[in-house]
Amino acid sequence: MNLYFDYAATTPMKKEVLDEYVSSAISYPFNPSAVHEGGKMAKEKLEEERTSIAGLLDVDDDEIIFTSGGSEALSIVFDSLIWQKRPGAVVIGRLEHEAVSSYQSLLKELGWEIRYIKAERDGHYDIDKLSAIIDKSVRLVAIQSVNNVLGLISNTREIAELIRKKEEEGKRKIIFLSDSVQAIGKLSFPLHSSGIDAASFSAHKIGGPRGTGFLYLKKGVSIRALAGQGGQEINLRGGTENLMAISAMRKALEISLSDRTGKEEKVKKLNMRLRDGLARLGLKLLSPENASPFILSFSSPLPSEVTVRILSGKGIYVSAGSACSNNKKGEAVEILRSYGVKENDAIKAIRVSLSEEHDAEDIDILLKEIGDIR
Amino acid sequence: MNLYFDYAATTPMKKEVLDEYVSSAISYPFNPSAVHEGGKMAKEKLEEERTSIAGLLDVDDDEIIFTSGGSEALSIVFDSLIWQKRPGAVVIGRLEHEAVSSYQSLLKELGWEIRYIKAERDGHYDIDKLSAIIDKSVRLVAIQSVNNVLGLISNTREIAELIRKKEEEGKRKIIFLSDSVQAIGKLSFPLHSSGIDAASFSAHKIGGPRGTGFLYLKKGVSIRALAGQGGQEINLRGGTENLMAISAMRKALEISLSDRTGKEEKVKKLNMRLRDGLARLGLKLLSPENASPFILSFSSPLPSEVTVRILSGKGIYVSAGSACSNNKKGEAVEILRSYGVKENDAIKAIRVSLSEEHDAEDIDILLKEIGDIR
Repeated sequence: MNLYFDYAATTPMKKEVLDEYVSSAISYPFNPSAVHEGGKMAKEKLEEERTSIAGLLDVDDDEIIFTSGGSEALSIVFDSLIWQKRPGAVVIGRLEHEAVSSYQSLLKELGWEIRYIKAERDGHYDIDKLSAIIDKSVRLVAIQSVNNVLGLISNTREIAELIRKKEEEGKRKIIFLSDSVQAIGKLSFPLHSSGIDAASFSAHKIGGPRGTGFLYLKKGVSIRALAGQGGQEINLRGGTENLMAISAMRKALEISLSDRTGKEEKVKKLNMRLRDGLARLGLKLLSPENASPFILSFSSPLPSEVTVRILSGKGIYVSAGSACSNNKKGEAVEILRSYGVKENDAIKAIRVSLSEEHDAEDIDILLKEIGDIR
Repeated sequence: MNLYFDYAATTPMKKEVLDEYVSSAISYPFNPSAVHEGGKMAKEKLEEERTSIAGLLDVDDDEIIFTSGGSEALSIVFDSLIWQKRPGAVVIGRLEHEAVSSYQSLLKELGWEIRYIKAERDGHYDIDKLSAIIDKSVRLVAIQSVNNVLGLISNTREIAELIRKKEEEGKRKIIFLSDSVQAIGKLSFPLHSSGIDAASFSAHKIGGPRGTGFLYLKKGVSIRALAGQGGQEINLRGGTENLMAISAMRKALEISLSDRTGKEEKVKKLNMRLRDGLARLGLKLLSPENASPFILSFSSPLPSEVTVRILSGKGIYVSAGSACSNNKKGEAVEILRSYGVKENDAIKAIRVSLSEEHDAEDIDILLKEIGDIR
């Protein structure tokens, strides 16, 4: 028996999603850039998928740029800074995923200044502190919508309002980039009213295929890719469009968003059950109560990797921080410490990530096995 | 009835390849970076696939960097130039795909000098001419292995030898980057002995899935990605590994390379049949006789798009130049002209791309319909 609690790292492709991949691959085997009728059919299908996805998220078609996933969506925006004649400053949240934080070295090398901002206990960013570091030199603010380790939900709307005010004062564009792979399709997350300029989404985080995702780019926000390559995706992302994966992503989003509120409510209850149980075991919860119900981090009795391995031996899969950062343990601990977690708790951090497919019994088994760890 | 002659643009996924995708997705739904047993299984499977692919191509495992496709493989190498403190010069072939040629604007903006080299009639690059433009400032030479419009096969080994000589003289590295998406899996193309430092491959050009491919990076050649992101693929390509697509790519390569010589022979015969027929129709062949048998370009009786549409109306799909460049018609004509094709012939250019799945009857139908065009 396997119990999977690592949905924030990746999710199994849903049966209907796999079926959609196969059927799109068989029905539309053509290159959407081709002039012949096959190419036109593929192009139409591609644009239908874009319209469906945009519709599901209540954004405009031309605000969806298909990419190979969340990391690439973030890359396109960071890369666009390379075109700027004079380097300025970039504000980066301390809790950002390495898909964002690893851009620091390049930006510094190119003469950019990096300014950091920590999250408060409730996961929000203090607007006064943020205001103090956004001066005329800032060109981009990168703060994720939902943190991947602790599930902290940012106050994106307030941050966006501040950025708009600063833009007006300084009379220059500041891009608000938000890694949203743990938000879109899971939480109530109205992209338009969030005020975010650019957001990343990855299909495989919600039961879709790997290798596809999108960059949401608010109308009017102008960025330039390093090279247009084949010219696809309004010159922002070259390469033959992965139509079958895009169809499958649309299907995954449809499923995720149908009765989304019901799913969130179910997961909230599971999360509360887990919280209560962990507290009863005397374990320290690291995720605050207002965090995303899909993610719950706590400090386990033993160092993270030991706990992960013990549970894994019982067929229970949890994560030591973000899966991507498992090779960079030092950094993961550093990230937790920036949020005020003591080192001794950080090195024992475990992330449980939930899905609506779990039930109360799964939580009870997890709690029992955690309780048995000595 | 549909007759597809656009295999150089994209290919339908083979049944066994789709099956492999589905079975890998179901058996290995985990993130290869995860520490738990599921993650380890996925990581092992990923490395098995890498070993298989490397084995099929007779290269070392650590010379294969999985990417989202051919364009991204090329990008990683071009992007790495951004790290260089002082811009130098780059040599680019005049016939390069836009995945390469579109990097010109960025490089110029960053202070790099672009030097161009034309192909000779036989598709080879004149070593003396090339030698004359490779001085101490050159850091990268980008010349494709097989051209996507005309099928020209480059003299990569000679080019590599020249580059090695120049490296020794100048005592600095010159990367020989070769777009090889029309070569790998189709032609005899021993990567190691080709002398190429970095080559791109795209799975969907040989019956594999879209959204996956690899960068072949010769051992000892050191490049740096703009950002490591999740740290996957030895820090060169962040993002959760698209394991199911990689399994499917391995399957597609296996199929392509089994009796590869037999397939090439079959396609050669089809190509000759098509050549003879087109010549009998009095049409000018643009691809030389020593070109890849998989690609044959000729000048049709009417402007390219008209011919494509007439044939498409009869269920026959051919391409007007490269599918990617169809939005950039002027450029496609320019590329052909650099090869010595007269403008009047270039604007009527049609590319037929073949597969071993075609037979003589398909060619005859194509010839009949072309003959009927007035």
